[in-house]
This record gives sequence, C-alpha cells and structure tokens, in this order.
Amino acid sequence: MQKNKVLVVGTIAFDEVETPSGSSGKVIAGSATYISLATSFFEVESAIVSIVGRDFPGDYLEELADRNINMEGVEIDNTGDTFYWKGRYHKDMNRRDTLVTDLNTLANFNPIVPDAFKDAKVALLGNLHPDIQESVISQINPQNTTIILDTMNFWIERTWDELMQVVSKTDIITINDEEAFQMTGKTNILSAAKQISDMGPSYVIIKKGEHGALLYHKDQTFLAPAVILDNVVDPTGAGDTFAGGMAGFLASQAEMNFEVLKTAMVYGSSVASFCVTDFGTKAIVNTSISQIKKRVDMLKKSVDFKTF
Amino acid sequence: MQKNKVLVVGTIAFDEVETPSGSSGKVIAGSATYISLATSFFEVESAIVSIVGRDFPGDYLEELADRNINMEGVEIDNTGDTFYWKGRYHKDMNRRDTLVTDLNTLANFNPIVPDAFKDAKVALLGNLHPDIQESVISQINPQNTTIILDTMNFWIERTWDELMQVVSKTDIITINDEEAFQMTGKTNILSAAKQISDMGPSYVIIKKGEHGALLYHKDQTFLAPAVILDNVVDPTGAGDTFAGGMAGFLASQAEMNFEVLKTAMVYGSSVASFCVTDFGTKAIVNTSISQIKKRVDMLKKSVDFKTF
Repeated sequence: MQKNKVLVVGTIAFDEVETPSGSSGKVIAGSATYISLATSFFEVESAIVSIVGRDFPGDYLEELADRNINMEGVEIDNTGDTFYWKGRYHKDMNRRDTLVTDLNTLANFNPIVPDAFKDAKVALLGNLHPDIQESVISQINPQNTTIILDTMNFWIERTWDELMQVVSKTDIITINDEEAFQMTGKTNILSAAKQISDMGPSYVIIKKGEHGALLYHKDQTFLAPAVILDNVVDPTGAGDTFAGGMAGFLASQAEMNFEVLKTAMVYGSSVASFCVTDFGTKAIVNTSISQIKKRVDMLKKSVDFKTF
Repeated sequence: MQKNKVLVVGTIAFDEVETPSGSSGKVIAGSATYISLATSFFEVESAIVSIVGRDFPGDYLEELADRNINMEGVEIDNTGDTFYWKGRYHKDMNRRDTLVTDLNTLANFNPIVPDAFKDAKVALLGNLHPDIQESVISQINPQNTTIILDTMNFWIERTWDELMQVVSKTDIITINDEEAFQMTGKTNILSAAKQISDMGPSYVIIKKGEHGALLYHKDQTFLAPAVILDNVVDPTGAGDTFAGGMAGFLASQAEMNFEVLKTAMVYGSSVASFCVTDFGTKAIVNTSISQIKKRVDMLKKSVDFKTF
C-alpha cells in the first residue's frame, strides 16, 4: 500500500550552540532536518524542500535519504555556504541570545516542490520567510493537503502582510506563546488563540515549552503535556521536532480531525522530549518508534486521574 | 455519620488590589478565608484557626459560620486592627507589587487549635510564619493527620531554619515554581521537586499558575491542568483556593494516596478557576459543588486523548 506523504519545507543548517551543559560544536541542524527526522518514525513518505551550500557534507544528506526521506527538493548551491546560526542559552533555557546568523545560500532559496509531493497529505511549512512558504502553497493542491505553518517573531515583526497572506491559507498554525501575544496584542492565551484562528487557521497550536502545547479549535481546547525532564541539554529544534512528530503521526492516519490532532500533538511532544536531551540531532536519531510510543503512554498516565 | 475534619490555619485579612480589570476596594480575604471557603463545598467539617482585629465586621465571621465553618479558633483581638494587604498586579498578572502590608493583630497571633479538631484528618497550614505553623503541629496528633503546608518566598528568605523544621514534619507541601527554585537553587522543576521531597514531604506540589500544578511522589509525577480562562479579574487567593479545594476533597475521601491526591488537585484547580474571575471571594461564594464538578469533568476532557 502506498504510504501517505509529508512535504517538509525548512532550513538545513549548521548550528553552534552553547548551553549550561556545554558547547555543541558545529552540528547539522535546521528546521527541515529536525522536522523530517521526526516524521521518519511514522509510516509515511517524507520529502524535504530546502537548500544547502557547497560546504555541506554529502554524507549527511545520505543519512537523511537512508531514513527514507526524499531529498529531490534539496538544492545544492555551489555559489555559497550553508545557512549558519550560532546562539547561547541562558541558565534559564527558555531564553537565548543569537550570536551569529549567516543566511548564506538561504538568501537564494527558491523552493521547488517535487512533482510526487504536490498531492502530499500534510505540508509542514517550517519557519522561513512567508514568501517562501507562500510559493510552496502555490505549487501544491491545498484542497487535498493539510497545511501546517510554523513561524516566529522575526517574521511577525518584519513581514506582517506577507505572513497574514500565508496564515489565511493555513489549516494548522504552530506558534510560541510569546509570539502569539505579539501577533495579537493579547496577554491571554485563549484570547490570542481565538484571534489567530480568525486570521485563517481552523486549528491554532500555541507552544508553551516545558508547559506543553495548547490546541484551540472552534471553542474547544486541548492541552498536550510536555514530558517532564531533568536532563535538558539543548532545547534547539524542540519546536520543529514537535511539529514534525505531529505532522508524521497526522499523515499516517486516515482521518484528520480534532481527536486525531490531539494524539498527533502528544506524539510530537514525545519526539521533542528526546530531541532536547542532547546537542543537535543526536538524541533523535538514536530513538525509535517504540520508545516514542512508550513516552506517549507515559504522558497519558501523567495527566490521567479518576473522577471518583 | 460524622464527617471528616479539616483544620485550616491562616490569615483572615482585608485586601485591596488593583488589577488590569479595576480596583477591588477593601475586601475580606486572607489565606484562611479562601481555604475554608474552598473546603466548604465538600462533605467535611472545617475549622479556622486565625486572628482578626477590632475593626473586623462580625457579619463576615457569621457568613463563614453559616457555611458550617467552625470559628471557635478565631481570636478577636480588640487591641488592634485586622491584617491588611494592598497590592497592584501588572498587565501580566503573574507579576504583582506589594504596596502596603500592615500585620496589625497578626503580630500577636498565638494559634489555639480547638479540641474537637486535634484529630483532624487534614490540617492545612496556610502561608504564615513557620513558628505559628510549628505551634499548630505541636497541638495536634500528626500520626492521624495529613499535614499540608503552604509557604512563600518571604519565609524562605527570612526564616529558613524554622521553615525546614516544619517542612520536615509535612506530608504534602504546596509551593510556587519560582519559590521551589529559590528553596533548592535548582532551575529544573523535577530536580527541585525531588530535593524538596528529601527535606521531608512525601508529596511535593509545585504550583505553576495558569500552567497547572505538578505533583511529585516517589519518582512518579502527575500534572493537574488549570482551567484555561479568558476572564481573569484578580488572581489573589488562587493558590489558597487551590490548596483548600484539594484539602476539602482529600478529607472527604476514606483513603489518602497518590491516586486520591491527583483527583484532589484537580478539584483544587477547579475551585481556584472560579476564584480568579472576580475580586476577593465573590466568585467562590457564588459557585456550587455541581459547577465545581462540571469543571473537573471539563478538565478531564481537556487533557484526554486516544492513544489509537
């Protein structure tokens, strides 16, 4: 049987992070990397649309391909280097400072969706310029595709009109709590979720880091818990991994509705809980679907109570 | 059949708060008020041990007595006025500034536990000087009583040794996340909970405001969700109301264990969700056990998901 497809658009990058646990050194990262690794645990076919530079090791692209991730849409641009980001986390790892952002070849990125993925069941538009996200939507058949959008403060501040254009075409948006407040001028999470839903997305997911994620859909809410960890090494990529795990589970199911999305979020939460326990993608690549399912069961138990 | 007993020790106070929603004016408040109102919804007998001054309206004491709260342990000290607190909340209502604290007669408080409550099933020691909390423990039979302790930064900073003495005799501690970090020097909620448990309490409850509350007990965790509200008027008393609802449910049950405490926390969360929707005690006194149960069911639904 043909597997359902997930289209992943985002960055493939070199990251260098310092956290209270130490330094990562230069590691492979980027939203498309985290997202596609997370989708690879599910019974789906994934494809990345992204760009890398001349300095990017072919071995790493093969590692992704070995996980059955279609790399046809990854452009290798020999005119420049790969997108590079360097950051430092505070003792409170909810806060970080960006030290270096070198866009490099990302500045030339013109996404081309592989023909075989124009009918993807799920398209996850990772954090990128809204014009790039828009270009991807224009290449697919959005009637058949659940479009998930991730964005951040940078685009809210600088490309509001373009962002609103994409948001209006989105089915599911994932956004941090602070960014949701920034986007709406609200200071209440429920009011913010309602207002964002009015901008287009039928499903609004507000990520609250260690406090889990809130789903809002037509006056219904769901709280997906986060795994409570005491061994967080590097939070980079947690949001992408969450979205990727969610998209992977979603695409693996026949139906897409509130109930299925709830479980998908918990799968996302589970995969993300592995991501943060080591630098870069190390902990994700070393986990398995059985470990991920085990944490989903653990999460179920961690919020379960009798009503007597 | 005789009902189980809850002993409540805390303040009865006049509060005056300003929040983004407006000003409360001078209202009846204090930890013992919020706690005992919350316990009054359950099939238990409650008693308050507290002190008020000559300015305190007898009508209000009768209102509590009318809710079947034993007021025998409430001293009326005619040498001074009632404890008074004035505060102002920020737009982000997780932050507040204290404008005035007049201890008044609270400075003379020498708690006397009524004989009939020395065998209480649950004793809730609200936020007060640890020496007062200790004095209450010395008057009861702690072998038969589940001792719940609430404390805050003020006592952590100023009366560490006395606080540790009380904490060592406590079964359940409730504390804010920031205060748990302050108490342990940790920045991770699970590490902090473990360390606090090592200080004495078998059950550690870390209150996270709108993000709910975490229960830690012998390497098991439970997350009690908070009701997601968009009509918060005044957060004052939410923590006390949570603890009171929890203590009330707990005392109403035959057994006290991890499973029962989980449900008790959700009841606490439900009662607290009413508290914050109006100034002072207004919204609590106008709710009912059926409305509280309804929100418990809603909370159950808000975290429920299928594992497929």
